[in-house]
Amino acid sequence: MVRLKEEPLRKLSYALFKAVGTSDEEAKIVSNILVDTSIHGVDSHGVRAIPGYIKGIQLDPEAPRALVPGTPIKTLVDTPTTAMWDAGRGFGFVAGYKAMSTAIEKAKKYKMGSVGLQGTGHIGALYWYSYLAAKNNMIGLTLCRGGGHFVAPYGGVEGRLGVNPLCFAIPAGKYRPIILDMATTGVAMGHLMVMSVRGQDAPEGWLIKPDGTWATDPRSIFKREAVPVGFGHPYSEYKGYGLSIIVEALAGAIGSGCSLDETGFGHTFTAIDPTGYTSLDEFKGRIDSMIDHLKSSKTRPGFDEVLYSGEPEWREEDNRRKLGILVDDPFWEAIVKTAKELSVDIDGIMKDGYVKA
Amino acid sequence: MVRLKEEPLRKLSYALFKAVGTSDEEAKIVSNILVDTSIHGVDSHGVRAIPGYIKGIQLDPEAPRALVPGTPIKTLVDTPTTAMWDAGRGFGFVAGYKAMSTAIEKAKKYKMGSVGLQGTGHIGALYWYSYLAAKNNMIGLTLCRGGGHFVAPYGGVEGRLGVNPLCFAIPAGKYRPIILDMATTGVAMGHLMVMSVRGQDAPEGWLIKPDGTWATDPRSIFKREAVPVGFGHPYSEYKGYGLSIIVEALAGAIGSGCSLDETGFGHTFTAIDPTGYTSLDEFKGRIDSMIDHLKSSKTRPGFDEVLYSGEPEWREEDNRRKLGILVDDPFWEAIVKTAKELSVDIDGIMKDGYVKA
Repeated sequence: MVRLKEEPLRKLSYALFKAVGTSDEEAKIVSNILVDTSIHGVDSHGVRAIPGYIKGIQLDPEAPRALVPGTPIKTLVDTPTTAMWDAGRGFGFVAGYKAMSTAIEKAKKYKMGSVGLQGTGHIGALYWYSYLAAKNNMIGLTLCRGGGHFVAPYGGVEGRLGVNPLCFAIPAGKYRPIILDMATTGVAMGHLMVMSVRGQDAPEGWLIKPDGTWATDPRSIFKREAVPVGFGHPYSEYKGYGLSIIVEALAGAIGSGCSLDETGFGHTFTAIDPTGYTSLDEFKGRIDSMIDHLKSSKTRPGFDEVLYSGEPEWREEDNRRKLGILVDDPFWEAIVKTAKELSVDIDGIMKDGYVKA
Repeated sequence: MVRLKEEPLRKLSYALFKAVGTSDEEAKIVSNILVDTSIHGVDSHGVRAIPGYIKGIQLDPEAPRALVPGTPIKTLVDTPTTAMWDAGRGFGFVAGYKAMSTAIEKAKKYKMGSVGLQGTGHIGALYWYSYLAAKNNMIGLTLCRGGGHFVAPYGGVEGRLGVNPLCFAIPAGKYRPIILDMATTGVAMGHLMVMSVRGQDAPEGWLIKPDGTWATDPRSIFKREAVPVGFGHPYSEYKGYGLSIIVEALAGAIGSGCSLDETGFGHTFTAIDPTGYTSLDEFKGRIDSMIDHLKSSKTRPGFDEVLYSGEPEWREEDNRRKLGILVDDPFWEAIVKTAKELSVDIDGIMKDGYVKA
């Protein structure tokens, strides 16, 4: 593990994306989202992903998995409150940032705003976009019909849905925003990767084999021996499945990834202004009061306190701002290798950026 | 069990509400929603509830649990896309019907519409309101911060949240709408009542005792020996908890039930027009295609086929339209008793309305 300071890491990420021909604006947006995500403790979606995106940019632009910075966003539909965009093969981060920003602008005028996005790839951690709405005193909702169709429906054993995460952010008053960012499967794929690296078993009820029994090896999904199911098995799997269908319907049918033969990503970015219903002070006061109320519950054995959704990540963010951002050695080595290949002066940029891990 | 025909049952319900002084319009709206709900197979929220509402109407209007038909709805906020209403102690059904109808009208003009509702009591099964949107080719979302604060937060053992159901309805093409209507607890309270009547045990992970162990007697919640937790325990309870917080924040903080000392209901009724993003035909075609895709999965042992959310209720509705609506004997006896007390000619109204159970 290495610990890295925030500002040098932003500069490094910017330099890497510039080195493969990304524009100033795009390199800044992408780097900020990736570094923010690492600060927030969401390592699966943070700076570890940089070398992968660089590789995508280096592919032939016609190749199936190519990422093509600078692809213009096409507006397919535009109304006072809604829009539908096609971002082609451009950065999901850039299109997502612009989509949620536009949803917020629409909501500032009309109390509700929503932008659908098709054609683009990975947008990273959803929390970042919903939180952008919360920073603007809006309720934010980001939905993603994930790539592929490898999640089994309730009662089935073959992949038919994406991981289909959803993320709500709710602005509070004295507390930091509530952020619920979750996969509609038992667990996000990134966590299964981490578990397999650490030699941990998956619990029964996450990964189903073709014969209907449960796999406990977290790598079984990557070996195509099992597929994930909706969360909450055995007594609530149909609820996780139901939420996955809703995300598939909203982000997928609105985007382009919800059908027998289409497998792309689909997203919706929605902002709702609480002043469409009540004053902002009253809304935030009630949210604070709810959080106080949750925290006043007696705890169970094994718990010191009750937390609200998103609070563990806010604590990790405080920690990392103080101590530096943790990056696992293999991920850091891949970043160093990419920098050398691109002749980016990583030693110069990072020289004061290391912190003792 | 008795089986009853739809039309006589509507007439009976209407006559009962008229007999306690409810207006024509209100008696019709309430009766239609209750009978529709029974036809849809949601017995916990259907006609069995009639005697309870009648009792509420018969209370002194100042009593804490009084239901006061005819209470005017006050508009607190109104914008092109949103509104906030206070329905006082009037029928939740009537205010809810008008709120979703208004949300749909706003969405017809602006692609998105949403009405918050405070001050009112029970609105019955959420599916009815979201389905109203789907019948109008809209995506419907109904959120309810349920009465009381008796659901434990993740890590806690004391009640701090409502049951907090949420319901999405999505219009399809060749299929009937997807309807996901679910509590954010392991199970809705009505099902625990049914389980206790039938002598069934609740699984571990639904009801927590003050010492942090699980209760399996479904009556333990009504005996105040245990409280429900978010759904998905042990591996996804924090996700159900997170969704409960979101419903509490949206329906509660927008309504009036989300705070340390307020315990009322709060609702939001939202309609989203898919044509804000894409053509209706394209949207519905993708939904159909998704459902085809789900159904094409091989099944697990114990499952004959894959269903989508809401499909079991559509099948039960077909069944009941053919065979009549099932009503459990104790519920029917209570309705008969109420009719006699109100001198409603139940024998005359129902004479051709019985079907062999």
